[in-house]
Amino acid sequence: MPSQPFAGVLVPVLTPFTPAGEPDAGRFVAFCRWLLDQGADGLAIFGTTSEANSMSAGERMALLDRLIAAGVPAARLMPGAGACSVTEAATLIKHAVGHGVGGVLMLPPFYYKGMTEQGVYDFISAVIDKVGSAALRMYLYHIPPQTMIPFGVELVGRLIKAYPDTVVGLKDSSGDWANTKALLDAYAGSGFAIFPGSEVFLLDGLRNGGVGCITASGNVNVPGIRKVYENWKTPQADQLQADITRVRMTIQKYPMVPALKRIVAHFHNDPDWAAVRPPMERLSDAQSQALLADLAKIGYSLGERRREAAE
Amino acid sequence: MPSQPFAGVLVPVLTPFTPAGEPDAGRFVAFCRWLLDQGADGLAIFGTTSEANSMSAGERMALLDRLIAAGVPAARLMPGAGACSVTEAATLIKHAVGHGVGGVLMLPPFYYKGMTEQGVYDFISAVIDKVGSAALRMYLYHIPPQTMIPFGVELVGRLIKAYPDTVVGLKDSSGDWANTKALLDAYAGSGFAIFPGSEVFLLDGLRNGGVGCITASGNVNVPGIRKVYENWKTPQADQLQADITRVRMTIQKYPMVPALKRIVAHFHNDPDWAAVRPPMERLSDAQSQALLADLAKIGYSLGERRREAAE
Repeated sequence: MPSQPFAGVLVPVLTPFTPAGEPDAGRFVAFCRWLLDQGADGLAIFGTTSEANSMSAGERMALLDRLIAAGVPAARLMPGAGACSVTEAATLIKHAVGHGVGGVLMLPPFYYKGMTEQGVYDFISAVIDKVGSAALRMYLYHIPPQTMIPFGVELVGRLIKAYPDTVVGLKDSSGDWANTKALLDAYAGSGFAIFPGSEVFLLDGLRNGGVGCITASGNVNVPGIRKVYENWKTPQADQLQADITRVRMTIQKYPMVPALKRIVAHFHNDPDWAAVRPPMERLSDAQSQALLADLAKIGYSLGERRREAAE
Repeated sequence: MPSQPFAGVLVPVLTPFTPAGEPDAGRFVAFCRWLLDQGADGLAIFGTTSEANSMSAGERMALLDRLIAAGVPAARLMPGAGACSVTEAATLIKHAVGHGVGGVLMLPPFYYKGMTEQGVYDFISAVIDKVGSAALRMYLYHIPPQTMIPFGVELVGRLIKAYPDTVVGLKDSSGDWANTKALLDAYAGSGFAIFPGSEVFLLDGLRNGGVGCITASGNVNVPGIRKVYENWKTPQADQLQADITRVRMTIQKYPMVPALKRIVAHFHNDPDWAAVRPPMERLSDAQSQALLADLAKIGYSLGERRREAAE
């Protein structure tokens, strides 16, 4: 079995931008620290929720440099290395592995549609070969709603077989439990780490060999999600799962990234946090009020949960 | 009316790679010169057919540097500046405009799906503002089969209105004549330059106010396509159009970019030209033989056409 650097609740960290639209390294470092203090097991920085693909490779590497310089433990980081070119993906990964990160999260090449499975295999293979590091731990990032290019069950198996010490896990953001279940049935038994891309499937995942989740709403609900992770074998598990599912369903009635940033802005009392980069748009005032009202209705409060976590 | 640097037959130039998979600047420069010698009116380097999105920003800029250093006229170049981030798109455009290119071809941000029209507008607007150059001439690149993010008719109108001296044209690779027609009806009359993304629609486009085409098969058929452009008002126009449509339809029975590279490899007697970068795959031997046999059946020969062009 491969060594497994990650398990539990991982957060694809939101990226704050300054009012001028630049990545805000100061707020980013502070927020990453806060997430770890809240109990996050790992930080999947530069994912979809992070607006990573709205940043250049240089901007991403500069933010990672700042996190490391600030003393955030590299072993807890799983930076996204998504890029359409082997060249850029390899550059991002070499930089991350050079910092000693626990692993990287790897999108398929996502510009060209209708590519063959062999073409995607060749891409991942070329990236791994170009990086050429025994220290690399790669987690495949299956998110067909954005990429349209799947890491299908068979392709995953081929990559595990070819790179057993490198391709060690997968984030499944298909939103399709049947797909997650098929992956778990096929590969969890041999130590391949499968993370559903939403906490809605956390308990089902754990009961079927999954090792945690990597979830956008972790940005605003680490303590709740960790309760499920810590208590999944207890009689309370289903109720705890229902609690976090309710929070998630409330948030995802709105555009997810702008909604999460609006929640952070509100509960951290820091309005600048609401900024997004185009092509995303902030929530309107009406949407913001409706979102906060919906969250109040279900008793959600980041403040209270934070105090609970500190007790 | 805005100044219009381009009209006629533009070629989204194939990018050659070395056997080791690196961009092959020598072959690239030679091929660009050959296309201009064949009669190409402009070179839309770094488009979809160029596998631009399988290259890093640095690789693209280095190739452009080499073309300029080799004396290829910058005014004839329309480099693609496609990128998912405002930062990278602006970097690519500043570099290209610094070289004095005629214009740039601009994709929408293509990672995130389901973005609003306002979000795409804000992205383009932010790029133009960040470049901040009166010399910029931008051609919008509508290619929903790859991007899933359209430049719809209304959005195009908003961008023209906001940036009348900058947003001066569009390449329509939707493959949907009704869409091209709607754009022509709405904006061609005011001097906005509309290029169908396939020569199949060249004659229809010219008859409805279009100014030429930007087409992948230009890589292997500039002389034929130029005949339609030069003779579109003559009685021979429909027959000439039928001739080039037949060539195009024959090629596009196969995966387009690998097929075009295989044709170049064959007729330029340079087998290395067949190389593609993943996620694309070369044609198999069987596909290659079938393609060349299909082309022979319709009497296609790059060699003969080349001699014709030189007469």
